Amino acid sequence: MAIKTIGFIGTGVMGGSMAANLLRAGFSLQIYTRTQAKAAALLAAGAAWCTSPRAAAEDADVVISMLGYPVDVEEIYWGQAGLLASAKKGAYLVDMTTSSPLLARKIATVASPKGLHALDAPVSGGDIGAQNATLSIMVGGEETAFLELRPVFEALGKTIAYFGPAGSGQYAKMSNQIAIASNMIGVCEAMAYAKKAGLDPQLVYQTIAAGAAGSWSLSNLGPRMLSGDYSPGFFIKHFIKDMHLAIDSATEMKLELPGLKLAEKLYQQLTTDSEGAEDLGTQALIEWYLRQ
Amino acid sequence: MAIKTIGFIGTGVMGGSMAANLLRAGFSLQIYTRTQAKAAALLAAGAAWCTSPRAAAEDADVVISMLGYPVDVEEIYWGQAGLLASAKKGAYLVDMTTSSPLLARKIATVASPKGLHALDAPVSGGDIGAQNATLSIMVGGEETAFLELRPVFEALGKTIAYFGPAGSGQYAKMSNQIAIASNMIGVCEAMAYAKKAGLDPQLVYQTIAAGAAGSWSLSNLGPRMLSGDYSPGFFIKHFIKDMHLAIDSATEMKLELPGLKLAEKLYQQLTTDSEGAEDLGTQALIEWYLRQ
Repeated sequence: MAIKTIGFIGTGVMGGSMAANLLRAGFSLQIYTRTQAKAAALLAAGAAWCTSPRAAAEDADVVISMLGYPVDVEEIYWGQAGLLASAKKGAYLVDMTTSSPLLARKIATVASPKGLHALDAPVSGGDIGAQNATLSIMVGGEETAFLELRPVFEALGKTIAYFGPAGSGQYAKMSNQIAIASNMIGVCEAMAYAKKAGLDPQLVYQTIAAGAAGSWSLSNLGPRMLSGDYSPGFFIKHFIKDMHLAIDSATEMKLELPGLKLAEKLYQQLTTDSEGAEDLGTQALIEWYLRQ
Repeated sequence: MAIKTIGFIGTGVMGGSMAANLLRAGFSLQIYTRTQAKAAALLAAGAAWCTSPRAAAEDADVVISMLGYPVDVEEIYWGQAGLLASAKKGAYLVDMTTSSPLLARKIATVASPKGLHALDAPVSGGDIGAQNATLSIMVGGEETAFLELRPVFEALGKTIAYFGPAGSGQYAKMSNQIAIASNMIGVCEAMAYAKKAGLDPQLVYQTIAAGAAGSWSLSNLGPRMLSGDYSPGFFIKHFIKDMHLAIDSATEMKLELPGLKLAEKLYQQLTTDSEGAEDLGTQALIEWYLRQ
């Protein structure tokens, strides 16, 4: 099946850039997002406006959702204007929201008897990755559907990996967030310790970043921590959401992840103690240490 | 002062390679190590054997120690055959053991009135870095002494950084170990979660290593964890020692480091639960998770 028309639901910071890349790649887009103003640039670039998720899904070959929380995904799929009821037979439903693996399975279970193909395809790479079409895309669902949708994924990202049945993309994304959670603690603790010891933390970070202590977070967020630049690359509120999803998922699996739980606790304490911290970037965790 | 003769105490896995590099760079070496057999290759390469640390220090321009634990450093410096009593006036005493910052300060305080110059200069980069003279060397002590010893450090490492007064090199090394401790938890938790979710953890690690979850530990130890290769690049027993030093040091500073404490607890549990685990590489922490 040739993919021509894509319904795109949720054109925020991530979704907006992704939709623009799909337009650039030659797909026809029909879009819906909660705040119409956020879609202005896309409409100017040739996307068609829809007044509901249901309308965005109608007659589309593919329906992509890029939302905030699992509850938003449920609303879009099952709510009054739900796309599970309106998508045309044979359509591909691709949820790219970082969401619950179990919800992804549930969607696939409901979609399949309707002749719909559901994929979970969360991404990493942030706003820059979305803009430059260099996202990593982690896909779960039927492999045949994944293969059909490669041209769509290739318009959005650079690393595109298929992990297995429905939910597998979300599981892979959770692994990513779990690795980041404890590493963020390590970076903050190393920098806070260096400061407290009276060292030049900039020199410490430069010296250790090239060796066994090195990480993307140390190299990219360490300098921002040290200069007090807490502008969001990735919002604390979104990271807390992801950690809750990962904790719930690990609990379902009966897997104890004490590092993840500690990270969630520290971020919660930070947002409880300082108003507005949830809208800062994840590197602001260093404040938990500096305030001691 | 031209540096000609170096006393080298402790020619184990790290010290042996470092001493060999000093010989290669043209320094005269007089060496002492607990087990004489471990010095055979160095003696064959032209080093002179000494029967005590005291003898290795006599008439040397520089005395380097590379030992296991702070208690060994105290023994070498103050014990019956202590080098604080035998080093010649004007000599440089360089402790490259990963040791306590406070002990480094104490050595400097005692050395100074005797006309001796003490530096703390722990390293990172492991056995490979020691062999290839690519170590990172983190130096604390008088800056003039550091500058005099640059030729010695340059024979041993690639990144050579001066951090400030006595103890500062140890503080920098502790920062390095603190960053590694929590990151190791993150890498293990991500890999254990991926396995438990039924994903191909090899594919997960390849997909996430290039992005924001990326780290030296993930790229270098992740694959070993997944193949059950626990051969030591860095021994768990040494890492536990370093974490104890870092915890003590943070406690002195009244700095709470919950991630570091968690890492120490998990490694302790692993070595308590499985005999011989202390002689495995640090990546064996994954077993704490896989045994659940």
